[in-house]
Amino acid sequence: MATVPHLMTLADLSPRQITRILTQAHHLKHRSLPWLAPQQYKPSGKRVKLRLPSQSLFNKSIALLFSKRSTRTRVAAETAALLLGGRALFLGKEDIQLGVNESARDTAAVIGGMCQGIFARVGEHAEIEELAKYSPVPVLNALSSLWHPTQILADLLTLHEHAHLFDPTLQPLRVDERSRIAPLPNLRPLTIAYVGDSANVLHDMLVTYPRLGHSLRVATPPQSAYQAPEAVWNRVVELQCDKGIWWGTDPREAVKGADVVVTDTWISMGQEAEKEQRLKDFQGYQVTEALCREGGANPDWKFLHCLPRKAHEVDDDVFYGGRSLVFPEAENRKWTIMAAFDLLFGKWNLGEDQALSVEVNES
Amino acid sequence: MATVPHLMTLADLSPRQITRILTQAHHLKHRSLPWLAPQQYKPSGKRVKLRLPSQSLFNKSIALLFSKRSTRTRVAAETAALLLGGRALFLGKEDIQLGVNESARDTAAVIGGMCQGIFARVGEHAEIEELAKYSPVPVLNALSSLWHPTQILADLLTLHEHAHLFDPTLQPLRVDERSRIAPLPNLRPLTIAYVGDSANVLHDMLVTYPRLGHSLRVATPPQSAYQAPEAVWNRVVELQCDKGIWWGTDPREAVKGADVVVTDTWISMGQEAEKEQRLKDFQGYQVTEALCREGGANPDWKFLHCLPRKAHEVDDDVFYGGRSLVFPEAENRKWTIMAAFDLLFGKWNLGEDQALSVEVNES
Amino acid sequence: MATVPHLMTLADLSPRQITRILTQAHHLKHRSLPWLAPQQYKPSGKRVKLRLPSQSLFNKSIALLFSKRSTRTRVAAETAALLLGGRALFLGKEDIQLGVNESARDTAAVIGGMCQGIFARVGEHAEIEELAKYSPVPVLNALSSLWHPTQILADLLTLHEHAHLFDPTLQPLRVDERSRIAPLPNLRPLTIAYVGDSANVLHDMLVTYPRLGHSLRVATPPQSAYQAPEAVWNRVVELQCDKGIWWGTDPREAVKGADVVVTDTWISMGQEAEKEQRLKDFQGYQVTEALCREGGANPDWKFLHCLPRKAHEVDDDVFYGGRSLVFPEAENRKWTIMAAFDLLFGKWNLGEDQALSVEVNES
Repeated sequence: MATVPHLMTLADLSPRQITRILTQAHHLKHRSLPWLAPQQYKPSGKRVKLRLPSQSLFNKSIALLFSKRSTRTRVAAETAALLLGGRALFLGKEDIQLGVNESARDTAAVIGGMCQGIFARVGEHAEIEELAKYSPVPVLNALSSLWHPTQILADLLTLHEHAHLFDPTLQPLRVDERSRIAPLPNLRPLTIAYVGDSANVLHDMLVTYPRLGHSLRVATPPQSAYQAPEAVWNRVVELQCDKGIWWGTDPREAVKGADVVVTDTWISMGQEAEKEQRLKDFQGYQVTEALCREGGANPDWKFLHCLPRKAHEVDDDVFYGGRSLVFPEAENRKWTIMAAFDLLFGKWNLGEDQALSVEVNES
Repeated sequence: MATVPHLMTLADLSPRQITRILTQAHHLKHRSLPWLAPQQYKPSGKRVKLRLPSQSLFNKSIALLFSKRSTRTRVAAETAALLLGGRALFLGKEDIQLGVNESARDTAAVIGGMCQGIFARVGEHAEIEELAKYSPVPVLNALSSLWHPTQILADLLTLHEHAHLFDPTLQPLRVDERSRIAPLPNLRPLTIAYVGDSANVLHDMLVTYPRLGHSLRVATPPQSAYQAPEAVWNRVVELQCDKGIWWGTDPREAVKGADVVVTDTWISMGQEAEKEQRLKDFQGYQVTEALCREGGANPDWKFLHCLPRKAHEVDDDVFYGGRSLVFPEAENRKWTIMAAFDLLFGKWNLGEDQALSVEVNES
Repeated sequence: MATVPHLMTLADLSPRQITRILTQAHHLKHRSLPWLAPQQYKPSGKRVKLRLPSQSLFNKSIALLFSKRSTRTRVAAETAALLLGGRALFLGKEDIQLGVNESARDTAAVIGGMCQGIFARVGEHAEIEELAKYSPVPVLNALSSLWHPTQILADLLTLHEHAHLFDPTLQPLRVDERSRIAPLPNLRPLTIAYVGDSANVLHDMLVTYPRLGHSLRVATPPQSAYQAPEAVWNRVVELQCDKGIWWGTDPREAVKGADVVVTDTWISMGQEAEKEQRLKDFQGYQVTEALCREGGANPDWKFLHCLPRKAHEVDDDVFYGGRSLVFPEAENRKWTIMAAFDLLFGKWNLGEDQALSVEVNES
């Protein structure tokens, strides 16, 4: 019997594996788009034979065990599973109570005995590790107190797709109506600034960007609540990512030379009681044109945010303006989750030593 | 890139477009029934090759953004999407809070970037217009404070299917086990009486029936709360439907000569606080045999109700009796929503100048 | 038009019909497993052409009308419908209120007009009989105050699959990677002990096991609340099952000679207020090694529990130990529900006089 693969954080993957997931996401997206919206991509009047993407989840079921509310991750997962021929079953906190009605151990055994994969959004990270320990099928982390790997995959795909914005020698990507798929463009080494709270989104950035050749500049408020937890920082050091990271408390300093500026919510789910204190601690952290100009960002800086967004984190000018990549980034949640589902749940193969026989398994 | 079509009210469509949706609904229904229930339609012992209906939503996702509870509309939409090869994702008010966690603008952009259509049941009609403004995919109104277009499509299909009840020269429709589909029967000009509240169901009747050659007779209580809102009446006048409408306050007068009597709930979702006052205002409005006899309805009058039904609106004799078309009407929510999904979400084509190449696009 | 078949309790079926459902469940399971998890069953390197199970629900919808929370039954039903090519629509108590917003009669007519089957989990058993009375499509009982037929189907399949544990002349079953399906092994006559509350799980055991040649030994506390309701006992007597049943109040006596020990929750949904009293009444009923040794169970006794499990009912040593079949039992909820869906909803044919042309309808 094959070993069951799981994915808890991008720290678990090599740069080559990460690139493989991104390549597969790009492939699935460009294969699917002309199929999904022929009105937009088909030259009018011409008949084009469209090809389906990988059907590796045909008639298969993926459990979405979500103890927290979700829109983007949920809709991305449900639409991705459908495109792969299968179905995601949303099981929210009202439907299933991890650790309340039933232990994580029993839930993992039961759900894993009926479904072909578990995509879990939990509170404490230890809960998802418990699920993975007892599940007979692969478990993918949809968000935990420590990590958010699928968000960073979406951010990376978005940056690669917009590589021409950072490198004038490149052409913009186009969706081809005949499903001929151009390679995913290479991305030049970027300076990426993160201004906000040290939460799961940042944590997966910390263990990923430096290994892919990018520099990270982080500003968080000075209080200990806003520093990376030890469990995270241990992985950063283990992967030698700390050398590629500058970390301070001044947002202006953080955006210096930044090609990309990223922020996230200041008040995560469950932290509503600390709202007033947090709003105070994050004064001066709002991402604006002025902040980036004064801090000396690359004049062509672009903006990412995992959504939903509050106006105190980033103003309307940036969020809805020409620098913002937030809506392509949101759409890419779907394509990167689809790639992870295809490789992890459908093929039990995140690559590394074996070549991913994508073309063969598909069609 | 093609223009994104939306459907907010039947006032947006020409009579020819409305008829086209009904024709497609009839086609999809008679193509699907022998497939869904061969036990009932297949001559026993014989093997019949059945054909699937249009698969224009194959592996595609339709978001159901429902800020109000729903049974009929939801189940109709979910089963219709499935028959078209796709899937409807129900996102209720607990799953997604329009205007609470996230603006309608951001929600439209994000959901529209992952799904191939949005079927939305909102509170204020302005909310769905905001969704349509920012959605990259078609938006269909599943119910708003002003309009309820898919209900009237179901009512119309039900009346056409039962045309023989109003015209003795016609034969009843039959489902053919070999999927040969008879044309949808023509409907003679009818007198349709509506007795109840001026709510979204009535509003779409007002802008539709007169344009299709039918007369409308309406009775609502005299208070201003029970009259059509200005935004609705403007559309009625703009479409010159006012000439085909009689509007008074006496239910007996309204049912005079009526071939069809229609009512709806007196207390819509959100009006529970006004219950006592409303029950008082609607005294004498219950649809009964006596009311219609005394008012001088066509002795063969039939009854429609969008459900769920309260007994104060219509008594058991009428509701469960031989005049009642309410259960075929409920089933037709499915077939008309399926046609709207097929044409709007699958084909981006509600017709008018181009012929709908239904036979070609299918199979 | 064919008569609509329903299934309320296994008391409605002959032993031959029960065996037919089990045989079909076994067939569907062994046809599906190599398809769902080729990583586990496929000889590495070899290419094997896999066959899909029956697609009798292709593009069809099954309504799950659940007025009580559920994990196992729900996930089993959703994944089973998907494997049969269709989809289960979960409609929970928040989505649809049987007897609150709308009568069971109207709900049955409306939902049955849009879906191809109804799988209902209700409170009072009379509610599901009302649904069946008015539904135009088959209704299957997913749990009621009186009966729980699909649980006992899962228990029976689990016992047949593990027949070799009770009969040393038999070989263990294997999943064949080429989808060659071995017959379901015969089960020697067993002594089955039930120690706990007289609830729906026990009730379907009472009307089933004696007819299949097994002896039942039951211990419940002496109070009248823990005895079988008259409606259940009447069916037991009518089917002459009472002769195969010993019923007392001492758990030690009940497990005498037992090959299988079964228990269930002591506090069903809705009985939370009686918790303290019930915990008192069930003192001494916890299933443990000591209880079964002292009572004189077969030294090789096995354990079944429908889950979720509380530790007061059975200790960890038994529950997670080598005697426990609870996780295969949970998985078999899926395969037996799939067989019931296939035969009842897909083929309207639970067998008896006509041969089930499984091989023909499938492919």
